[in-house]
Amino acid sequence: MTSDLRRRVAQLLVVRGSGHWSDGQRRYPRWELPNAELQRLLEAGVGGVILLGGSAAELRLRTDQLRRWADGPLLLCADVEEGVGQRFEGASWLVPPLAVGRLYGRDPQRAVDLAGRYGRCTGRQARLLGLNWVLGPVCDVNNNPANPVINVRAWGEDPATAGALAAAFVQGCQGAGVLACAKHFPGHGDTSTDSHLELPLLPHSRARLEAVELPPFRAAIAAGVAAVMTAHLQLPALDPERPATLSAAVLEGLLRRDLGFSGLVVTDALVMEAIAGRYGAAEAAVLAFGAGADLILMPADADAAIDGLVAALASGRIAMARLEESLARREQALAGLGDAPLEPVDVALDGLVSAEEQALSRELLELSLEQAQTPTPVLAAGPGVNLIRLDTALNGPFLPAMAPALLRPAAAGYGACLIEGRSPSPWSGDPAAPLALERLPAGPVLLQLFVRGNPFRGSAGGDEPWPAALAQLLAADRLAGLAVYGSPYLWERLRPLVPAGIPAAFSPGQMPQAQAVLLERLGLAAAALEGGFTD
Amino acid sequence: MTSDLRRRVAQLLVVRGSGHWSDGQRRYPRWELPNAELQRLLEAGVGGVILLGGSAAELRLRTDQLRRWADGPLLLCADVEEGVGQRFEGASWLVPPLAVGRLYGRDPQRAVDLAGRYGRCTGRQARLLGLNWVLGPVCDVNNNPANPVINVRAWGEDPATAGALAAAFVQGCQGAGVLACAKHFPGHGDTSTDSHLELPLLPHSRARLEAVELPPFRAAIAAGVAAVMTAHLQLPALDPERPATLSAAVLEGLLRRDLGFSGLVVTDALVMEAIAGRYGAAEAAVLAFGAGADLILMPADADAAIDGLVAALASGRIAMARLEESLARREQALAGLGDAPLEPVDVALDGLVSAEEQALSRELLELSLEQAQTPTPVLAAGPGVNLIRLDTALNGPFLPAMAPALLRPAAAGYGACLIEGRSPSPWSGDPAAPLALERLPAGPVLLQLFVRGNPFRGSAGGDEPWPAALAQLLAADRLAGLAVYGSPYLWERLRPLVPAGIPAAFSPGQMPQAQAVLLERLGLAAAALEGGFTD
Repeated sequence: MTSDLRRRVAQLLVVRGSGHWSDGQRRYPRWELPNAELQRLLEAGVGGVILLGGSAAELRLRTDQLRRWADGPLLLCADVEEGVGQRFEGASWLVPPLAVGRLYGRDPQRAVDLAGRYGRCTGRQARLLGLNWVLGPVCDVNNNPANPVINVRAWGEDPATAGALAAAFVQGCQGAGVLACAKHFPGHGDTSTDSHLELPLLPHSRARLEAVELPPFRAAIAAGVAAVMTAHLQLPALDPERPATLSAAVLEGLLRRDLGFSGLVVTDALVMEAIAGRYGAAEAAVLAFGAGADLILMPADADAAIDGLVAALASGRIAMARLEESLARREQALAGLGDAPLEPVDVALDGLVSAEEQALSRELLELSLEQAQTPTPVLAAGPGVNLIRLDTALNGPFLPAMAPALLRPAAAGYGACLIEGRSPSPWSGDPAAPLALERLPAGPVLLQLFVRGNPFRGSAGGDEPWPAALAQLLAADRLAGLAVYGSPYLWERLRPLVPAGIPAAFSPGQMPQAQAVLLERLGLAAAALEGGFTD
Repeated sequence: MTSDLRRRVAQLLVVRGSGHWSDGQRRYPRWELPNAELQRLLEAGVGGVILLGGSAAELRLRTDQLRRWADGPLLLCADVEEGVGQRFEGASWLVPPLAVGRLYGRDPQRAVDLAGRYGRCTGRQARLLGLNWVLGPVCDVNNNPANPVINVRAWGEDPATAGALAAAFVQGCQGAGVLACAKHFPGHGDTSTDSHLELPLLPHSRARLEAVELPPFRAAIAAGVAAVMTAHLQLPALDPERPATLSAAVLEGLLRRDLGFSGLVVTDALVMEAIAGRYGAAEAAVLAFGAGADLILMPADADAAIDGLVAALASGRIAMARLEESLARREQALAGLGDAPLEPVDVALDGLVSAEEQALSRELLELSLEQAQTPTPVLAAGPGVNLIRLDTALNGPFLPAMAPALLRPAAAGYGACLIEGRSPSPWSGDPAAPLALERLPAGPVLLQLFVRGNPFRGSAGGDEPWPAALAQLLAADRLAGLAVYGSPYLWERLRPLVPAGIPAAFSPGQMPQAQAVLLERLGLAAAALEGGFTD
C-alpha cells in the first residue's frame, strides 16, 4: 500500500541524467545522477528524466537504455529550445528564437512560418533520438535587454510577437509527435537577476501581467501546448509569500482557473538555489505539488522528495485526489503521443537532419544579414590580430579548433588571440583606452565578440568596455573589422561606432555555421582546413 | 579485369574517417572523409579505416555502420596508444607509456605486468567498440628529451626497457583478439623535429641502429606483433635517397630480411607533409608499395592512390606478385582475429570498463607519486591564483569545465587564470622576471603546467621560461605550489627549484583522474561540484 503509493508518487518526478552512456563522461556530476542511482530510481517508478550532453547518436542509445530500465512509459525531455543540436551534437542547432522575433514586425507571415518549421524540426529530431518532450518554447517577453537569463532565448520583445511565434513553435513541435512546454510561467522576461543564482522579484500588478507577461502563455495554451513550466520568481501582487513555483495563487488561480490550462504543470528545476536554498528538497516538492504542480523537475534529492510527498499525502496535508489528477494528466499527455515504435538507431541517425531542416538552418542564419541592408566592405588582408572574446574556451561547443572564426581570419593573415573569462587581463584600467594593447600581438585588429546572456554566467563579457575599446582601436587606426555573435543588444551599441569603410557584421548564432555565413560576408571564404559544414 | 584489379588494390588502402556519425561533427574535416565519400570508397573495396574522435558509444555505432557499407572484412584501426579512452571518451584513458618505462629499472617484473595489462585493456576495449587493430605500441626509444613528437608516448628511454614493455603490450593487446602495430620503424625516438611538419633526418650508422633503435622492434616481432608502421624519416646510412616509408632498403632489406618480419607493413599517414608535400598522392603510394609496404595509410587522395597503384601494376613497374603477397598477408591477419560475433551494443558498452581495468587506471596514476618518496606539504588556503598553462583550451579533453584542476583549487580559494597558446601574453619580456605579474590577479600562485610533446604542436609551452618564472614567484614570496602534468622532463627541471616547504607534485597523466590523484596529494579533496570520476 505505502509501497504502491511510493511508486505512484515517484511517477511525478523528472530527475536529471546526462546524455552520455557512462558516469565518467558526465559534464556536471554534481547534478547528473550516476547510472546506478538513475537505474534504481527508474526501477522504483520515477517517471521522467531530463537529459543534457552527449552527441545525438549517443543520446539515442541512452534513451533506449533508460526505457529499458524504466518500469513504465517515461517522459524523456531536454532543454532544446534552440534545436536539438543546441545540446546534442549532430542534430540541427538553430539560431536563437529572438532572431525570428526581430523579423516578425516586418514580415509576420514569414516569421510565423519559420517558427513553425523551427518547432517541427526540433520535435521531429527529438523524437528520432528517443525524447518525447521538448522543454520549449520560452514564452517570456524579453522587454529587458539586461536580462541575463532569458535574453535571446525569447521569441519576442513584445507580447504579440512572443505569443504568435511561441504558438507556431508549439504547433510545429507537437505536430511532430513530441510534447512542448511553455515557460517560465508567469513570465521571466523582465528580470535582471538570474534565478539560477537568486530569487528575482517581479513588482508588477495583475493588470500589467495581463498586458505584457501573460499573452504569450495564453497563445501557447490556445495552440494546445501540453505543458507549462513555472518560474522561480517572487510576484508580490499575486502571492506576497511564495515564489510562483510554490504558489497556489499562481498555479491553481492564475494558470488553471484564469487561463484555463488543463495540461501538465511542471516546476522549473527545484535544485536551483532560489528554491533549494530556501525550502529544502522535501518541502520544496511538497509545496510545489500542493500549489498545483503535476511534475517535480530536478528535486535536490529525489528520495527525499518522494518521502516528503508520500508523507504529505498519507497525513492528508495534500488530498489524495491531487495525486490522481496529476497522474491522470501525465497519462493523458503520454497517450497523446501515440505508440508508433521508434525507428531503428541507424535509420533514425541517417535521417536525423532532413534537407528541409538544413535549408531552415541556413535560412535562419541569413536572416539577420538580410536585415542589415547596407553592404559590408571586405576585410583587408593581414597580417593582423584576430581578437576573440568568448565566455569560456573550455567545452565551448561553438569554437572547435577548426572553427571558421579561427581558420578564415588565419588564412587572411590574422593570428588568433583568445580572451575568455579567466585569461590574463587584456584591460589597462584606463577608461579612455581600456585595452592594454601591449599585451596583444601587433597589427590591425579583427574584433570577434561571442556574447549573449547565459544562465549561471551573467553577461559573459557583455558589460566589458567594448564601446571604449572600439573607439581606442579606431583612434589608433587599428580596427580592421568587427563581428558580433549572439547579442543584438551589444551589436546595436557597437554598430554606430564603426565607420562605413570598416567591415562589421552581426549574427544571432554563435555556432560554426553562423561564423561561416558572417565571415563570408566579410569576404573570408572557407579555409582549406575547414572542410564543409553540412549540417 | 581492370575493375577487379581496382577492387583488389583498394583493399590495401586505409582511409581516414571520424568516429562521429555525421559529417558536421567532424573535428578535422580536411582529413576526415565525409560519409558519402567514405561509403563510396568502401563499396569500391577500400579495405580499412582509421578513426578519430567521438565517444566510445558513438564509435561502436560508427564501426557497425562502416562494416555495413563495406564490401568485405574491414581493418578498423585507431591511434589508441594510451588506451581507447585517449581518443574515444568513455573508455579507459591510461597514463602515457613512459610512466611505466620509468618503473622498469626499479621493478622490471611489475612494469612488464603493467604493460601487459595496459595492452590487454586497450585491445579488449577496442574490440568491444568494433575496432580490430590498435596502432600501438610505440617502439621508438625516447633517448632525446627534446623529441616533440614521440616523447612520453614511448615505452622507454633505453632499448631494453622499450623492447620488454612493447612486447608485453603486444601480447596483452593481441591476446584480447585485436591486432597491434609496432611503430615507427626503424625508430623515431632520436629526432627533434616533427615529421608531421617536415622530414627529420637520423644520421646514425647501421651499428648504432642495431644498438639503440632496432631492439624494441625485434622484441615486438618476437612477441608476434601483427603489423609494423614505417617512419617518415631520412636515414642516409640505409638509403641515401628515400625516407624509410618509401625505401626498399629499409622495408624489404632491414625489416623483412634482416629482422625476419613476415606480417603487415603499413605506412605512416602518407598525407603527412614530409611525404605528401614531396611526392604527391599517387606516386607516394606507388613508391611505398613498391618499397615493400602492404597497406597504404591515409593517402592524400585515395582515388589517385588507387589509380597510381593500378597503373604501376598494369605496366609491370611493380610485379603483380607483390599485390598477391600483400593481400595474402592482409587476409592472414584478419583470419587470425577469428570470427566471433561482436557483443550487442548495450552489452559492449555496459561492460566496456571492467573493474580490473579501473584498478589498472588507478594503479598507473599512482605510480609516479609512489616514485616521489618525499611527502608533499599541503597547499595553504587561499585566496590566491590558480595559474594554469595548457596547450589549447579549445577541445582539450583533459580540462572540462568541472575538472579537478579547476574545482579543487577554487574550493580552496584559488581563482583560475588560464594561459593557452593564444592568450594575451603573460610575459613581460624581462628574462629575470618573465611573468608580467600585473596581468594576473593578486595573491599566492598555484602553478599548474599541462605540458607534453604533442604531434603538430611542438613543445606546447615547454620551452617557455618556467624555471625563471618559478624563481620570480619565489623571490616575490608568491609561489603557493606547483603541479606538472605530462612531461617528466619539465618536472625534472623545475622540481629542484622548489623549496621543501612548498607543495609540488608531478603526474605523467593530464586527464581529470590524474588531476584528482595529484591534487589529493596536495591536500585538495574532491570538490562538491566534481562528483566522482568512476570511468
